[in-house]
Amino acid sequence: MSESSAPPSDRTTPARMVDRVSTDRTALNQLLDSSLLGHVGFVTEDGQPYVLPIAIARDGADVLLHGSTGSRWLRLIAQGIPVSLAVTELDALVVSRSAFESSMRYRSAVLFGRCEQLTGQAKQDALDVLTDALIPGRVAEVRRPNGRELAATLVLRLRVEEFSIKIAQGWPDDPPSDVAESAWAGVLPRQLSYPEAWPAPDLRDGIELPASVRRLLGQQTGPSGG
Amino acid sequence: MSESSAPPSDRTTPARMVDRVSTDRTALNQLLDSSLLGHVGFVTEDGQPYVLPIAIARDGADVLLHGSTGSRWLRLIAQGIPVSLAVTELDALVVSRSAFESSMRYRSAVLFGRCEQLTGQAKQDALDVLTDALIPGRVAEVRRPNGRELAATLVLRLRVEEFSIKIAQGWPDDPPSDVAESAWAGVLPRQLSYPEAWPAPDLRDGIELPASVRRLLGQQTGPSGG
Repeated sequence: MSESSAPPSDRTTPARMVDRVSTDRTALNQLLDSSLLGHVGFVTEDGQPYVLPIAIARDGADVLLHGSTGSRWLRLIAQGIPVSLAVTELDALVVSRSAFESSMRYRSAVLFGRCEQLTGQAKQDALDVLTDALIPGRVAEVRRPNGRELAATLVLRLRVEEFSIKIAQGWPDDPPSDVAESAWAGVLPRQLSYPEAWPAPDLRDGIELPASVRRLLGQQTGPSGG
Repeated sequence: MSESSAPPSDRTTPARMVDRVSTDRTALNQLLDSSLLGHVGFVTEDGQPYVLPIAIARDGADVLLHGSTGSRWLRLIAQGIPVSLAVTELDALVVSRSAFESSMRYRSAVLFGRCEQLTGQAKQDALDVLTDALIPGRVAEVRRPNGRELAATLVLRLRVEEFSIKIAQGWPDDPPSDVAESAWAGVLPRQLSYPEAWPAPDLRDGIELPASVRRLLGQQTGPSGG
C-alpha cells in the first residue's frame, strides 16, 4: 500500500478525500486478512444474479471458502463458474457539513475468478487455514476433523484472476461556504471488539479460557486498536 | 420474528444450533434497519457476475440505494436489470470444541428485485432517508441538497420481489464425546461502537458536537448494547 493510501495516522491529514482505486496486492492481502466475511456473487442456471455471504480466509494469492456439502449454491460455485467476491470493511463515518459530502471511510475489494474444489491433504490444510482465520491459534487447541466431518464439508479455492481495491480514508471535504457556517464536521471511527466470552451451557467445570479466546478478548480494531 | 428465532436473552438457551430460514418481514426489517451496508449482485453486459458494496436504507418494503451518476455499475443497475442484494450482520463467534462445529452467530438476508431511478421530490425524500439511516437525525442539522448535488447523485429504489432471511443464534453443538474432553466452548459476542469523534481539521472554533453524533457516541451493539 502506498504512503498516500494508508489510513491517516493522526488528525493532521489534509481535509480532502483520500480515495484510491488500485490493484495493490499488499493492500488486498491486508484487507482479506482483517475480514472474516465476504460476499460471493454468481449467475444461477436460469441467469439470475445471486449473492451469498461466506466466511473467507486468504491463502497466498487465493481465497479459501467452505461450507456444507448440502449447500446447493456452494455446489454450483464448486463447478468452476465465474464468480465475483466482494470484501468490505467499514472503518468510520465521515460526518460532513452537508448530506451530500457525508460518507464513510472504508476498504473494499472486488475479486474475480473461479473456484476449484479441494480434496485430500489440501482440503485438510485449507480447513486449518479457515479455522485459524476465524479464531487465530484455534487449530492447535482442538482435535483433528474426522472422516464424517470432512465428508460433510465442501472446501473451495478461489483462484483470483483479477481484482481491484478501493480505499477511502478521507476527512469531510466541504466547500468554504459550508465551512463558514455552523454545522459540525468530523470522523467517527468504528470500534470492533470482543469484550466478553460466554461459556457454553454444557461446559464442564474447571476448563479455563484457551489462549486463542484470551487473545481475541484483548483485541479491538478502531481507535486505540490495531 | 418468532420467539424461537430471537437472539437468546441469556445463557440458558439450550446448547443446540438455533438456525432459522424464513421470509419473516419483521426480521428482515430489523436487519435492514440495523445495517449500513449491503452487497448488490448483478450480471454485466458480457454475462459476468459482479458484486458491489453499497450503503442501504430501508423505506417501507423497499430498499434505497444511491451513489454518483459517474458510477458505471450504478447506471447499469438503474436500468432495471435483475439484482440480488445481500445484507449480513455478524453477531458473535461460536467457539466449539472442534473446528467442524465452530461457527458464527449472524443474521443474513438475500433479496431479489429490480431498481427504479427516483426523481423530483421522491429523490429528495429518499436522500433524506439515506442520510438519516447513516447518521440518525442528521437531516435536521444540515442544509438542504442544492441543484448541483442532486444532479450528481443517482438514487434508486429496489422493489423487493422476493427474499429469505437466515438467523443463526446458537451455542456450540458438540457431541458428548467432545463435551467430555478438555476443550473450551462458548460464544464471543462482537461489540460495535463509536467511542470517539474526531473534529475535522478545518472545523471552526466553538462548534459543539451535534445531537446526532452525541447519540452515536453513546450507542453500542453487542453485549451491554442494543
